[in-house]
Order: sequence, then C-alpha cells, then structure tokens
Amino acid sequence: MKKRFVLPLIAISVFFQSYGQSTIDTSKYKDASLSVEERVEALLPLLSLDEKVAQMRIFHANIGVKADDKGNLNLSKKVLKKLELGIAGIKNPGEHLDAVDAAKFNNKLQKYIIEHNRWGIPALFVTESYNGVDAEGCTIFGRPLTSAASFNPSLVNRVWDVVGKEARLRGMHMCHSPEADLVRDPRFGRMSEAFGEDTYLTTQMVTNAIKGVQGNYEGLGKGTHIGAVAKHFAGYGQVLGGTNFAAIEISERTLIDEIYPPFEAAVKDAKSLGIMASHGDLNGVASHGNPALLTGVLRDQWNFKGYVVSDANDIGRLHYFMKVAETPEAATQMGLEAGVDIDLYAEDAYALLPEMVKKNPALEKLIDRSVRRVLRTKFILGLFDQPYIKIKEVKKGVRAKSSLELAKEADLESIILLKNKMNTLPLDSKKATKIALLGPLVKENTQAMFESVVGNKIKFLTKKGFNLTDGKGGNPKLLNTDSAVIDDMVALAKQADVAVLFVGGDEFTSKEAFFTNAIGDRATIDPVGAQDELVKRVKALGKPVIVVLKHRRTLSINTISEQADAILDTWDLSEFGDQSTAKIIFGEVSPSGKLPVTVPRSIGQLPYHYSMKEINYKKGYLFLKEGPLYPFGYGLSYASFDYSDLKISNNEITPTSEIEVSVTVKNTGKVKAKEVVQMYIKDQIGSVTRPDKELKAFDKIELNPGESKEVTFKVTPEMLAFTGIKMEKTLESGDYTLMVGTSSKEYLETTFKLKK
Amino acid sequence: MKKRFVLPLIAISVFFQSYGQSTIDTSKYKDASLSVEERVEALLPLLSLDEKVAQMRIFHANIGVKADDKGNLNLSKKVLKKLELGIAGIKNPGEHLDAVDAAKFNNKLQKYIIEHNRWGIPALFVTESYNGVDAEGCTIFGRPLTSAASFNPSLVNRVWDVVGKEARLRGMHMCHSPEADLVRDPRFGRMSEAFGEDTYLTTQMVTNAIKGVQGNYEGLGKGTHIGAVAKHFAGYGQVLGGTNFAAIEISERTLIDEIYPPFEAAVKDAKSLGIMASHGDLNGVASHGNPALLTGVLRDQWNFKGYVVSDANDIGRLHYFMKVAETPEAATQMGLEAGVDIDLYAEDAYALLPEMVKKNPALEKLIDRSVRRVLRTKFILGLFDQPYIKIKEVKKGVRAKSSLELAKEADLESIILLKNKMNTLPLDSKKATKIALLGPLVKENTQAMFESVVGNKIKFLTKKGFNLTDGKGGNPKLLNTDSAVIDDMVALAKQADVAVLFVGGDEFTSKEAFFTNAIGDRATIDPVGAQDELVKRVKALGKPVIVVLKHRRTLSINTISEQADAILDTWDLSEFGDQSTAKIIFGEVSPSGKLPVTVPRSIGQLPYHYSMKEINYKKGYLFLKEGPLYPFGYGLSYASFDYSDLKISNNEITPTSEIEVSVTVKNTGKVKAKEVVQMYIKDQIGSVTRPDKELKAFDKIELNPGESKEVTFKVTPEMLAFTGIKMEKTLESGDYTLMVGTSSKEYLETTFKLKK
Repeated sequence: MKKRFVLPLIAISVFFQSYGQSTIDTSKYKDASLSVEERVEALLPLLSLDEKVAQMRIFHANIGVKADDKGNLNLSKKVLKKLELGIAGIKNPGEHLDAVDAAKFNNKLQKYIIEHNRWGIPALFVTESYNGVDAEGCTIFGRPLTSAASFNPSLVNRVWDVVGKEARLRGMHMCHSPEADLVRDPRFGRMSEAFGEDTYLTTQMVTNAIKGVQGNYEGLGKGTHIGAVAKHFAGYGQVLGGTNFAAIEISERTLIDEIYPPFEAAVKDAKSLGIMASHGDLNGVASHGNPALLTGVLRDQWNFKGYVVSDANDIGRLHYFMKVAETPEAATQMGLEAGVDIDLYAEDAYALLPEMVKKNPALEKLIDRSVRRVLRTKFILGLFDQPYIKIKEVKKGVRAKSSLELAKEADLESIILLKNKMNTLPLDSKKATKIALLGPLVKENTQAMFESVVGNKIKFLTKKGFNLTDGKGGNPKLLNTDSAVIDDMVALAKQADVAVLFVGGDEFTSKEAFFTNAIGDRATIDPVGAQDELVKRVKALGKPVIVVLKHRRTLSINTISEQADAILDTWDLSEFGDQSTAKIIFGEVSPSGKLPVTVPRSIGQLPYHYSMKEINYKKGYLFLKEGPLYPFGYGLSYASFDYSDLKISNNEITPTSEIEVSVTVKNTGKVKAKEVVQMYIKDQIGSVTRPDKELKAFDKIELNPGESKEVTFKVTPEMLAFTGIKMEKTLESGDYTLMVGTSSKEYLETTFKLKK
Repeated sequence: MKKRFVLPLIAISVFFQSYGQSTIDTSKYKDASLSVEERVEALLPLLSLDEKVAQMRIFHANIGVKADDKGNLNLSKKVLKKLELGIAGIKNPGEHLDAVDAAKFNNKLQKYIIEHNRWGIPALFVTESYNGVDAEGCTIFGRPLTSAASFNPSLVNRVWDVVGKEARLRGMHMCHSPEADLVRDPRFGRMSEAFGEDTYLTTQMVTNAIKGVQGNYEGLGKGTHIGAVAKHFAGYGQVLGGTNFAAIEISERTLIDEIYPPFEAAVKDAKSLGIMASHGDLNGVASHGNPALLTGVLRDQWNFKGYVVSDANDIGRLHYFMKVAETPEAATQMGLEAGVDIDLYAEDAYALLPEMVKKNPALEKLIDRSVRRVLRTKFILGLFDQPYIKIKEVKKGVRAKSSLELAKEADLESIILLKNKMNTLPLDSKKATKIALLGPLVKENTQAMFESVVGNKIKFLTKKGFNLTDGKGGNPKLLNTDSAVIDDMVALAKQADVAVLFVGGDEFTSKEAFFTNAIGDRATIDPVGAQDELVKRVKALGKPVIVVLKHRRTLSINTISEQADAILDTWDLSEFGDQSTAKIIFGEVSPSGKLPVTVPRSIGQLPYHYSMKEINYKKGYLFLKEGPLYPFGYGLSYASFDYSDLKISNNEITPTSEIEVSVTVKNTGKVKAKEVVQMYIKDQIGSVTRPDKELKAFDKIELNPGESKEVTFKVTPEMLAFTGIKMEKTLESGDYTLMVGTSSKEYLETTFKLKK
C-alpha cells in the first residue's frame, strides 16, 4: 500500500527546508497498526505550512456548508477554497437535518474533504450539548444544572452516553461541552449550562458527563462516541457582575482549591479530548493569552495531551476587545504561545500565521505543537480509518426508546420539592378532580402531558394567560400583563379544586449574552412581570396552590415561597418535562432532587454560596432575614428520613490512612423514595481562613417505607488538603467537623483529628 | 538633672538579664535635647517586660475612666491596676465632656498616669474623626465621603487641621482616622467614612486629611495637632458582599495598583503616625496575621516607622473568629510577628505576652520592636515634655468662629446638584413665597435654618411626617407609614408654591456593623419605606419638587430621579447642613460638588465603579438601561461651562519627560460658580487588561459669568505606570487617550504616545 509520492514543486521546497531529503514514506500515517503518536509524526512532516495552519482552524457551517433539497452538498466558494488545504474541523454541519439525513450529509461532506486535501485528512465535525446534542432530531434532555439536581452521577453518565452516541451517529466527532465552570452568580445568563456552585458536585458531574460522551474513552476509537471539550478554562463562571466577557478578580488560592478541580478531573480522570479557554481575563491576564494557565497548569502540571480550542474569536479579541495585544498579529502570537491550538470561527487570527512565519520562522515549532494535538485527536477518533457513518445504524440509534425513557428518568430524579405545606403533594387524583393549569410557562402540550399521567379522570382547566417577554432573540423586552388577563386566569382557578401555576422564566429571561447583538445577563433575580401577582391572586381564593418553577437561573422567589402550598423546582427538564412533573404531582414517584445552588433571598446577598468562609456569614444585612431562601443540597421528599447512628471508624486520620463514617437512614414515611445523603467537612482552624463547610461525598439511596440503610463514606486525607499559607498544597493537623445529612443545613455531626 | 535610680528587686533581676550591669542612666530619655530615637533607646531598656507589654495595649475609657460631678477622676479598680504599669493609650477619655472639661479631665488623667508608672510614661489619648472629632463639643463637619464631593483637597486639609487642633485642645493625641479605603460597594455600612471609590481622589483627600490633622507633622511636636492613623490596611472596603468582617477576594495586581496607593501616600507623603490593620482577610490571609502586608509592604517597601494598631480585638479574633490560630497564644504570636504593635481594647491577646515570653524568650525582640514604635510616637508628640493642655487656650480654640464658618464653606462645596430640570433651582425667593419642607429627613431646626437664609419673607410649611426606622441602635426595624400621614404631607405641599422633600436614609439605615449586636450593611440600596411614594404623590400635584438627599450610602434613586424637578445630593453635611442646603436652594452659592462614587441603577449592577476595565462594560443587563444612574465625577452647576481648546504640549511622552495638557473652560452661565475640571487617562493597549479610564488630576476653579480660564495639568510618566504582566511596576510604550472634562462621562479627548 505504500507509495512514492512525487511532491509538487512548492511542497518539495518546504520539504527540503525541513528534512533535507527528497523522498519520504508518505503513506505511513495511514497504517492503522501504528500507534497514534507514530502516525501523527508520520503525517506532520508531510504538511505544508498552509496545510498545518488549516489544521488549527474550525469554521462554522453557517459560512456556506449547506444541503440542497436532496441532501446533496452545497458548499460556498469560500468553503471550497478553505477545504483545499484541509481543515481542523467544522462546527455544526447538518445541524438542521434529522439524524439520518445529517449522517448522510456529513458522510458526503467528509468524503469531499478527504478527497480534496492532499493528504486525505478528515475533519472534526463539532457540536455542543446543553439539552442533549445541539442539533435536530436528537433526544432532548434536561439541562446540565437540572441534571446536577439529581445528585446522581451515574444517571448523568448515562445521559451523556446517549449524547455521545446520538452525536456520533449523525456524523459528529467532538462536543464543545460540558462546562466545568462553577456557577455562583445567578445574574450570569449561562448558569444552567453548568453543574452548579459546588466544586465536588461539579467534578462528579463533569467527569461522568465526559466519560459518558466519550464512551469511557473506548467509544472514541470504536466510532460510537465523540470527544468532549471541557470548558471554559478557567474561572469563566466568576465574571464580575455576572456579565459575559467581563474581567475575573479571584485569588490564586480560590482558583486552585475551588475552580481548577473539575478541570483537573476532566483531564486526568475523564481524559477529556479537548479544553476550551475562557472569555474572561484572570486578574488582568486574558485567558487566551495566558501561558501559565494553558500550558503551565494544563500541560505541565496536569499532563494534558488534547487540544485547546479558543472560545469563538477570542484569539483575535486579544487585540480588538481585551486590548492586550497591539496588533492582530501580536494577538495571534500570544494565543499560539499561550497554547491555544485551534482558532474557532475566526478569520482574523490564525489565518495570519503563514505570513507571520515568513518573518518569524521560529513560530513553526509552536504551530507543529498544536497541529500534533489536532491530528492526534483525529487519529484517536479513528477518522483516518473509519471516517464514515454506517447509515443503517442511525435510525435505530437516535431517539431510541431507551434514550427517551432515560430522559424521563433523569427528569424524575432532578425535580426538587422546595415546599410541601401539610402534604399538599402528592395530589390524590380521586379528590382533586378539577385542576387548573395556569401561567406563562404552560406549554401547548402541558395538558396533554398531564392527561398522559392521570388519563381523563381529571378535568384540566388550562390557560397560559400571558407571555413574560416579546420573544425577541437578541434583546427581548418584558411584557406588561393586562389585569383582565389575570382576572380570567383567577376565574378559571376558582372553578378548580387545585391550581398548578407554571411560573419562573422563559428562555429569553436567561440566556447567553453573545459577543454581539445579544444581552442575556440580569441585574435582578426576582420573578419578572405579573407572576407574583398571579400567585397571590390565585392563593387568595383559598385553594391549594402548587407552583411549578421552570427557569434557567436561580430565582429569589420570596413571594412564591410565602404564598404557595407546594413548590416544585423543575429548572429546565427534558422534552417530557411536564409529564415528569405530572408524575411527581400525582405521586407516581417521590421527588428526590436537591438544589445544586444556593437560593438567595435577594440579588444583594451575592456572592452567596454555601461553601464560603464562615466569616462571610458573620454579618447579615439590615432589614433582611438571615440565611438563604433555600440552602444548597436542599430538597424535600414525599417520604421522611430519619438520620441516626453517625459513627466514625477512627477519630484520628493521618496523611496515609483513611477513616470511614457511617450513618443509618430510615424511611419513616409511607412511600418508597430516594434520598441524597450528603457528607460535608469543615476544617476548624487553618493556616488560612477556611470554607464554612465543603461537600466531600454523597450517595443517593432508595428506601421503602420503614426500611433502613447504613450509608458509608470514606474520609481520605486528599479531602482535607488545601492550599495553605505558603501557597502549597497542604495537610494540616487539627480538628475537623464532619457532617452527614439531608442538606447543607440539616445534618448530624461529629469531629475527628488529623495527626501528622 | 540626671539621677541614679535604685531599681526595685524584681526590676533589677529583669535588668540583669538584659544588660548585665547594675546601673544605667535612668533619666536620659527625659532629655528633650536628644533625638527621638536616642530617647527611645534610652527608655526602652529601663522597662520590665510587663511594662513593655503595657505599652502595646490601648484600653477603652468605658471600662472605668469616668469623671465625677466635679470633673474629678473616677477610675475603676481595673483601670487603676492597669495604670501601674503604664499604658500605650486610652480610647476616648472624656468623650462626653465639653472641650474645656475634657481638657481638664484629661490633664488629671494624664497626671495620674505619669505619676503612677515607674518611668512616668504618658499615655496616648485616642479619638476618631468622622463628622469632626468624635467627642462632645467639637465642630461637627460633614463626613469624609461628603467632603470628597468637594473635589477640593485644600478644603479637606483645612477641615482636618481644625479636627487636629480641636482634638489636641481637649487632650487627645492620636486620631484613629482617616480611612484610606476605597468604598465601591454601597452595601457596606461604613462607606461614608471613606473618600469614595477612586484611588486618586482618595489619595488626595486622605493625604490632605492627614497633613491637616497632624498640622503638617510640625503640629505634633508643637502640641497643636494630633497623630493620624490611616486605616484599614488593606482592602477593607472590598469585603465580599459589602458585609463587615467578611473575606476579601482580590488580585495582587488590583491591590498594588488601586488599593495600596492611598496608604502608600499616607505613609510616604503625609507621614501618618499610625496605620490600623483591617478586619478582613486578604485572599485567605487574615490582615492582622499578615507579615507580607504589615511588615513586607508597609515597613520594608514603604519604610513606615509609626505604629500599627489592631482594629479592636482582631488579634484575639485570629483565633476565635478568623480561625487561623489554634490558640489565643498562637493568635498573639501571629499578630506580633506580622507586625501589629498595639492591641486595641483586647484583654485576650497581648495580655498573654508576659507569660508567653517565659516559654519563648525570643519574642521579646519583637516586643521591643513594637514598644519602640509606640514610645517613638509619644516622643514625637512631645508628651514626655509637655503632657498637659493649657486650659486657657481651649475655649477660644474649640468651635472657633472660623471653624464653624469652615464647616459651612465645606458644605457649600460638597453639595451635588444631580438634576435641575428647566432651571428649577435656584429658587427665586420673590416668586416662591410658600415653601413646603417635608419628609423623614427634616430635622427640628430645618425650618429655622432655612429662615436664617431667607428671613421671614418666605412662609415655610414644615412636616417631617414619618420616620424611616424605629431608631433602635443595634438592629433597627423599618417602619411602615400610614397613608394618612402621606395624605397630610401632600395636603401641606398643595398649599405651597414649591415642595422641598428631605429624603434618603437616616443614621440607622447605614451604619457600622460592629462585631456584636449591630447590623449595618444592606442588601439593597433602594430608598426605604414610603419615600418614593411621597415623592410621587407630591409630584402629582404638578408643583416643582426639589429633593434634598441625605444619606450615608449610595442610593439607587430611580424613582426620585424620574420624578423630581431638582435633586440636591447632600450626603451627610455639617451641623449647619440644612442652612447650607438653603443657601444653595436660594442661589446664594452655585453648587459645585461632584460625585465621588458611581450611582448604580440597581444593586444588581455591582461591582460598578467608573474605573473598571472596559470589558466589564461590554455587556449590560437584560431589561435594565445601560450605564450608571449618575456617573463618577458628575455634578451640575447653576452656571454652565464650555470646554474648548484641549491642547497637549507634546504628543509623545518618555519615561523621563512630562507633558502638559491645557483646556479652556468658560463660564457661559449667568452666575459666578465653581467647576471641577477633571483629567482622565486611558491606556489603549496594555500587557494586562486596563481600566476604562482613571482620574489622574483635577482642579477646582471659580469663574465669573463670561469668564474663561485655561486650566493646565501635567501628565507624568508615573501616572502611566502599572503592574504589568510580570507583576512588576511597568511603563509600556503605546497609545494613551487623555480626557479632560466635567465628569467621567463628559469630556474632550485627545491622544498621546509613550515612547521608550
């Protein structure tokens, strides 16, 4: 199979410069029996500089990668020109096509690409995942923050396994997700894209998501799964004011102890193929131009081997937005030197590299460094050997029954019961025979979904009533609600035995604030518009009011919390969300979700997360009740759980020993239910001020009425390590408090000592 | 005069340990002809360990330093016992006495102290200054933040000169003020104690305050002024959530470039005798246990020679509150090693030192280091030579006519005109003959003060109407207002030609949140209670509404801003505040104050100051108007000013050259008025992300109608220096924008280059 390739004149000259010999084995890289590294090293020297740089750029399909009516390729001239040199990847090709059509289309596209660049290098087709694969015709799951509420990492693993499979089946290879950021500021429009405020919970969720989407890494080469790109490295959730693209002001210690761990685990444990840099600047240093971060921490400390991709045009933005580079060329060099391997979308940064190398040949070494990482990714994904999708497998693999059932299962574990006055829930479908379904978050199929759960024995009186916003994409406006509309809704509620009010926020009240033409962050987290009024008016009827919250950012629901008899916090569920909510409402399943974030009473309490230092809680605010509205880890059940017998195997731990802690949890209620048993640790005295408590383990268990289980956790020295006064990872002797309970506020506690 | 002193037995033994000889010149330190250093070195060896430690403690007079009815000393047993060893100082002795009585009392107290410790060491009597000297019978000035609005450093200098004189005359020696903190979070209850959000403005104000209170340093030894203690070192204004005692999360770069400069200038330029450490922890390191800060930065870098005093019990709190010390002893050692010289109030920290030295004699060296600094302060203040006040000077010196006039002058320069629709102000006292004075901030003497300005040609209809809070000190409650009360006020307004509404916040809606039993920070900055309603109701009458804002924290006055015809922002003025306001209202003087802080539209916009990085302003918030409600540096005038002819002497600057910029300002109005001409600089590209703009100079000028002045500023290389990518102070070549104008938002601009 090996052949002698006669290089065109230009290529020969490049070749001579690099190797000083006129022939080479130009097909060695195609030999699948060689290691990935051998194949990368065999291919790299064949590439011209332009071809190398092409392997450092991903463009978006919207610049001219379309399908005609028959599903045939329709590529713009711009795209055709680009593909002559090959390309690192294309974002979202075929995104608007159903899975089978997308797979066919992407096969054609890949074939075109392979056949039209000299070395037949395939492209990475790239997607993202928030509610499942970000493309037509895939299973729509709940959002990451919603699924974090399940406190069930293996469930999240299974969800992302489906994401990986469905994406690969439609011809995708990389997923520029999941987010490993901590979201502690509900003003931030992207908060629901991540797994909450906590380092440990996020670490569990993000590693399970990556393992899932990558098919435990094995799925990459097998062609069943896609590569993950953990993002946004680092500190992106901490943008000042919760506004996208803002600066980040954070101590090195907090970065190391709280922000980095989910990324470190994504790299070391879950073996994420990629990392995306962050829009933010870290203490003045733009992340895309930060070698200490992208090379020092990521490569040198964590030994990351995959590629680092820019977040959109952020390399070019080092010049024209961050203003830390005097010219586009300086920005390009800064990104390259820092360790950004792929320039996403941009025409303005890495496009300049070929010209820049003419003046500064030393840059080619850095280019090679990046190209190696990209080629490596393609070899790992098996793209040189099996670039195409087997179309016949697509239909049965996408939206499989098991996947749809999984979406429902995930919903049921993610819904959080915040309030249940006098056991308002579950509703007895025999007693409540007329139920009003009201509010701006009622969907067209809400009633049908409710009926699918209880059949037609209940009469539903349904009225959406009003919208919250005008639904304009970039910069939506809030709508006023005519009081006559509320009157109508109240009139309907009056006819019912119970009112279920669907309130919260629509997709326009919390969304990503893209660089141009889109605002998405908020200065308040109070429910907008007439929602509080609706709740109060319906409550005034004296009938049970059940509030179903749907939203993508934390809401300070003070009025709702006071007025409603029961509150189900559903965040942003799967496509079966209202059905799942109905199942919970009618008691088919007991709710078992727990808050993955703290719910403040007021935007004025920020920053506010459960693991802040104790000293931050010393002084409350004048005229405001102390504490959060609902604490992290909180969530009720239809059952009740009794915690007892907190035991510790040894009240001393050493740097080389572990101890075990166990607690007995009994279901003292009348229904089978799941409970998330949570273990927190507090370092009583440290060389630096220490968190009030930190989640270090949790376990979701299921108990029948009357059943007891002993839940056991390990306490390891690693759990106690932190960045001490000397900025080194340290274990400090002394007393620790250990708490095991049902939330960050309700627990049994004991103490132990660390002895060195 | 020298005598041989026969040491008591115990002292002798201590003495032998230290010096190994039995005689010493025990009165050398009394020789006023020697230098301060010589006298300190002569005295220190005489002191027993207990006596040394006594020189490291200040107790509060409230533990038993009282005057009886005749002004004689009434000292508790506890105090008598303490004074046997001498004492560093006493906080607030005689604070409730009028100046003359206080001076007499403090003379007696000092005499007792001197006569009852072996070496006759006098004590420092310590006060603070917010509205002038914090004691009875002194001139009550406007608060620091109020005076910062004057943008008139020499005026602030004169105010603090009076503070220093009045304090010394009543027997005080040290002032644990002023604050060099930047206050950028209006939730923080102490914001009005500092000089605003800006590094440069604060630096100007705090150095002038220190020079004033210390009588340009010369006043210290002359006995006419007192020593300053700049506080709270460092970053105290940046406590998370704006809550006292909270953690501080801030980058080293921001600390160096923005937070340190006012302190550095306080030490190097103004020669502050003392520095107080901060309650906060800096990125995990408690300030009172931070040698890098209190010794590294303060002593080694800045060469500070004075004393560092703890903020209240913060040394002990390293153990029981910050929890960075395992025991009270460890906390004590941590504070001592870090460089805290005096333990304020506490019984729990430095009180332990004598016992601790027995186990760890090496500590005595550190004790000596601190005692030297305290003794040095006392020698500088001339206390060994002239410990007593000349009583006959007190009466004429305190509340002198010139001081009271100065308080008024400062008021008139500090009042900020935020809005003046259709020239509502000044009021023509011929046309507006009936004026309603209404609102919760009306004081008993408000009407009298107004009458003192316009005589009885105007009829005032005055009604306070309601209180905002119940006035309970520690944890006040907000009061509801009966709508009938508002009705009455509106009825009164109806009878008037114009309504002046006194609204804002009372002393209980913004106050220091002391460690125990006091809340003072807030989660919202909206005006509380029925104030917005009052404004709307009165406005609905169709008559001109003038709002006078009195408050101690920034308020997001959205409704008032919309409704009022004119708004005077007076913050917290002197005892003549309402008279000063009346002078402005009736046009005796044109307002010339400028906002020393940004006024946000919403608490949800925080952090929000004008000098944030440009990237922080890229994305606004959904459903909220962009920008601040009022920008930093903003303030209207009864005149109008035309800015023209912005000229720059050279459009290149080098590391060793300066350039000059000039602008012509013309009073195009009809009245004489003052204007603050402000110069801002922006670094267009930096190695790190740079501030949107920074105030670098300002000049307050006065212009007659039609008059022009050319205002000239220097641009120096120092203004352009910042902490670059390598964490070193750097000057970077490139383009800078220079703006000169009337606020941080309205200016003429040009550019220049820095060439190296």
